[in-house]
Amino acid sequence: MEAHDGLSAAIAARAGFKGLWASGLSIACSLGYRDANEASWRELVDAVERIVDSSQLPVLVDADGGFGNFNNARLLARKLRERGAAGIALEDSCYPKVNSFVGDRHPLAGIDEFCGRLRAVKDTAAKDLILVARIEALIAGYEMHEAIARAHAYREAGADAIIIHSRSSSADQILAFTRAWQNRLPVVIVPTKYFRTPTCEYRRARISTVIWANHSVRAAAAAMRKVCGRIFAEQSAASVDSDIAPLDELFELFGYDELAKAEARYLHPDELQQ
Amino acid sequence: MEAHDGLSAAIAARAGFKGLWASGLSIACSLGYRDANEASWRELVDAVERIVDSSQLPVLVDADGGFGNFNNARLLARKLRERGAAGIALEDSCYPKVNSFVGDRHPLAGIDEFCGRLRAVKDTAAKDLILVARIEALIAGYEMHEAIARAHAYREAGADAIIIHSRSSSADQILAFTRAWQNRLPVVIVPTKYFRTPTCEYRRARISTVIWANHSVRAAAAAMRKVCGRIFAEQSAASVDSDIAPLDELFELFGYDELAKAEARYLHPDELQQ
Amino acid sequence: MEAHDGLSAAIAARAGFKGLWASGLSIACSLGYRDANEASWRELVDAVERIVDSSQLPVLVDADGGFGNFNNARLLARKLRERGAAGIALEDSCYPKVNSFVGDRHPLAGIDEFCGRLRAVKDTAAKDLILVARIEALIAGYEMHEAIARAHAYREAGADAIIIHSRSSSADQILAFTRAWQNRLPVVIVPTKYFRTPTCEYRRARISTVIWANHSVRAAAAAMRKVCGRIFAEQSAASVDSDIAPLDELFELFGYDELAKAEARYLHPDELQQ
Amino acid sequence: MEAHDGLSAAIAARAGFKGLWASGLSIACSLGYRDANEASWRELVDAVERIVDSSQLPVLVDADGGFGNFNNARLLARKLRERGAAGIALEDSCYPKVNSFVGDRHPLAGIDEFCGRLRAVKDTAAKDLILVARIEALIAGYEMHEAIARAHAYREAGADAIIIHSRSSSADQILAFTRAWQNRLPVVIVPTKYFRTPTCEYRRARISTVIWANHSVRAAAAAMRKVCGRIFAEQSAASVDSDIAPLDELFELFGYDELAKAEARYLHPDELQQ
Repeated sequence: MEAHDGLSAAIAARAGFKGLWASGLSIACSLGYRDANEASWRELVDAVERIVDSSQLPVLVDADGGFGNFNNARLLARKLRERGAAGIALEDSCYPKVNSFVGDRHPLAGIDEFCGRLRAVKDTAAKDLILVARIEALIAGYEMHEAIARAHAYREAGADAIIIHSRSSSADQILAFTRAWQNRLPVVIVPTKYFRTPTCEYRRARISTVIWANHSVRAAAAAMRKVCGRIFAEQSAASVDSDIAPLDELFELFGYDELAKAEARYLHPDELQQ
Repeated sequence: MEAHDGLSAAIAARAGFKGLWASGLSIACSLGYRDANEASWRELVDAVERIVDSSQLPVLVDADGGFGNFNNARLLARKLRERGAAGIALEDSCYPKVNSFVGDRHPLAGIDEFCGRLRAVKDTAAKDLILVARIEALIAGYEMHEAIARAHAYREAGADAIIIHSRSSSADQILAFTRAWQNRLPVVIVPTKYFRTPTCEYRRARISTVIWANHSVRAAAAAMRKVCGRIFAEQSAASVDSDIAPLDELFELFGYDELAKAEARYLHPDELQQ
Repeated sequence: MEAHDGLSAAIAARAGFKGLWASGLSIACSLGYRDANEASWRELVDAVERIVDSSQLPVLVDADGGFGNFNNARLLARKLRERGAAGIALEDSCYPKVNSFVGDRHPLAGIDEFCGRLRAVKDTAAKDLILVARIEALIAGYEMHEAIARAHAYREAGADAIIIHSRSSSADQILAFTRAWQNRLPVVIVPTKYFRTPTCEYRRARISTVIWANHSVRAAAAAMRKVCGRIFAEQSAASVDSDIAPLDELFELFGYDELAKAEARYLHPDELQQ
Repeated sequence: MEAHDGLSAAIAARAGFKGLWASGLSIACSLGYRDANEASWRELVDAVERIVDSSQLPVLVDADGGFGNFNNARLLARKLRERGAAGIALEDSCYPKVNSFVGDRHPLAGIDEFCGRLRAVKDTAAKDLILVARIEALIAGYEMHEAIARAHAYREAGADAIIIHSRSSSADQILAFTRAWQNRLPVVIVPTKYFRTPTCEYRRARISTVIWANHSVRAAAAAMRKVCGRIFAEQSAASVDSDIAPLDELFELFGYDELAKAEARYLHPDELQQ
């Protein structure tokens, strides 16, 4: 499940998800940037730190193309590992990137150059960080054989898994890929546009992981728009009270009771003993 | 209207609000911290920068007690001004603070010491930053005359407005304050607990500003909880599609079209001329 | 004069310099990065903030190529302006850059693409920020006419001044440039390698500004190496005492007395009156 | 040996030191802040990250009093551990602190409250972080028995070592402490003012560690002042060339050759094979 800040991470963890996707698009939205490498890699690292700290879950980080060449990518990977990330997903785009769902110009990185990025990350952080190679070939308008060729190359370069990305509104592209790929590495998908396909089909295609890549930030945006609109129109918050989380829910989510207990233990130990 | 990140700021601005409240509680929640000065003042400054940049609105910053003494408070004020904030609200609490709605231990700062903080901020950043003094006396269990005495002292120390805070579920405390205070400085209120009072009553009491202090973050939390729960249970995002903002709404909110136009102007000027 | 942190900025200001160069190489060294866009643009912005705050001088920022395309460059320019920088120098290199004095591979940016970066910065931040275009053509091994052609193009794109960079150990290249350029825009030079030429020659050539681009960080490095070596060898700091600044010099540089006076004014006003 | 940024850390490591002291005073100077908790704890964490990354040495962090109460202290400790610090030194001062060598007002923390900070850090980060308790009692003008009483209390609270601080110009205070303390925990000293005592005396007193706490930043300040003064007066850098490190020394210090080799491996593998 996507997370973009400490709050969304804590909520997704509470809902039961076993791993999080630190989405580039969602983090950009949350920061008020566009998903075009406007946020610096430091701001991505900071966001990941908040997500990891608030969820205690394995976090796979959407690192775009790695913010430059192999050297930028391996530096970023090292920092993400230090922040406690579980994995890094690198996509075969050029810097600065454009969001996969925006526009039609998506120049792909050369296979050799991108494999250099993968190998550099692998050599730097392999023991502690899952390396996922994300293929943008279908987004960029290439044929399936290009996507498959890239998958083979990325596997040889050390990728632990493949994200095959598509913006088709059906899952056909993805399923064609999995048939051709034969699960040589685990396949991860991001059904943002083709969300209607039932998950059992993905199981049947032996897809390893499904990423719900931006649904929390979109839920938050819709809800905030509604509540802002209502308060502005009514000049009152009375009617939105049932649509917003009680303060106590937030306090419970972030362990305010732990803080109270710790105050008793560390700040007022004498009172505790009485 | 409260904002805690770039997204909430952009949405509140779009809804028509004319000013924003950079809420300490909401920013802490968004970062996954507790509202007990866990976030450093640098992280507050960073959050305010995102809020200002994404909204282009006047932003009043909830700066808690100023993160220390007069010296910390004036340094913070200077940095907030540089980030484009319109005002700073300082509360008469000690560092580290506890959230006003949590627990019953709320030691107040001494009047003289707190007035020193106000004067230091005033002398440092007065020309460009509205200075709002927030009175926590009623929260801390003091009588009304203490709140009024503090309001007088803070006015003399240079405050431009007063926030009188209450966690009573009715507006009686607040209205008693305004009757006694006689509008010697503009009064700002935060009806988080006493949200049912109609706004016309505040107008009648000549209250200057009402802050909806945490409603966006609570709207976001409720919505994300719901969507996370549904996706986790159904193993599909199909049924939540109508509850989440379309990607295009996010793209529109952050001006992705401006980026496309700017690419045409700066990156491909020749094609533009054709 | 170069500065790379608050300390070097304060010292250069105290020495009498009227403007500072926030050097990319020096800031990278100070942070422990290599001058190859390892530091993110946010870390550059943070360093510039410290330099501006500690010196109160006009600061020209070495922004490399702008950390990406026109969009990254204009975002960076906006942030530098907010931090109080006086100017931004953009070089016609690709991202990620390599230091001009390292290696022989220095791919130049295309003229049109780089002019797009200049125009984008000009349109975003022109009123408050001097825009300096830095020409790396001579570093990259091109002939003089290429450098001149670029100077003309950059001038038309809105540059306020030109940095012509050379790593020759004599000033001949630079002087040849100024003869051909005829001062159509002010010329700035960086005599790191050709430092033996007397400054009067630059005056004669009507060069506007000379940047001593890395001399503070190199002075610091030499001194710290010496002192570390001595303390390590002698297991004592006794013999280095005359080579290091007294603590009081540091306290005086950063206005510790102002803090003491402010404490008297804001923290203990009653004692003051006695 | 003290370090305050990546450069000073790399130089100290190269000189042979086996551990570093991330000095609060030095980091503040380097950032242009005063040593009065002007820098936020995030900026301290960032500086420590640069020091650890550039030296690969065990780093003991001067964390002042922990930037607030037990909760701030344990949060800071957790972050320092994540950045790879080896230890944290907490002093029994109040927030915001004043530098130990400035002024005469040094209110000490209460013993119980400070022990709460120590226990909180111990419980949070004990397995991976050495906890050093720093006693400011002698600085604050208390008698030796107060210092000894505090040492006992801090040991019971979980400290792994004691820093006993003195601003006397002789080592008598320190040696009196060690005689009374009988090495119940390892003793660390900071001979900034009493630097003339030969180290063999400390060995004889079974002192565990000597911290040269600010000598690199003071070496850098003296050297930069000299070089700035000379360049400003002579309008030329010609005469300072022998006093500053050659660029190649900096390139060598930060492994620019590793970058070149990595480029060959990851960016141009085909050329490598030829």
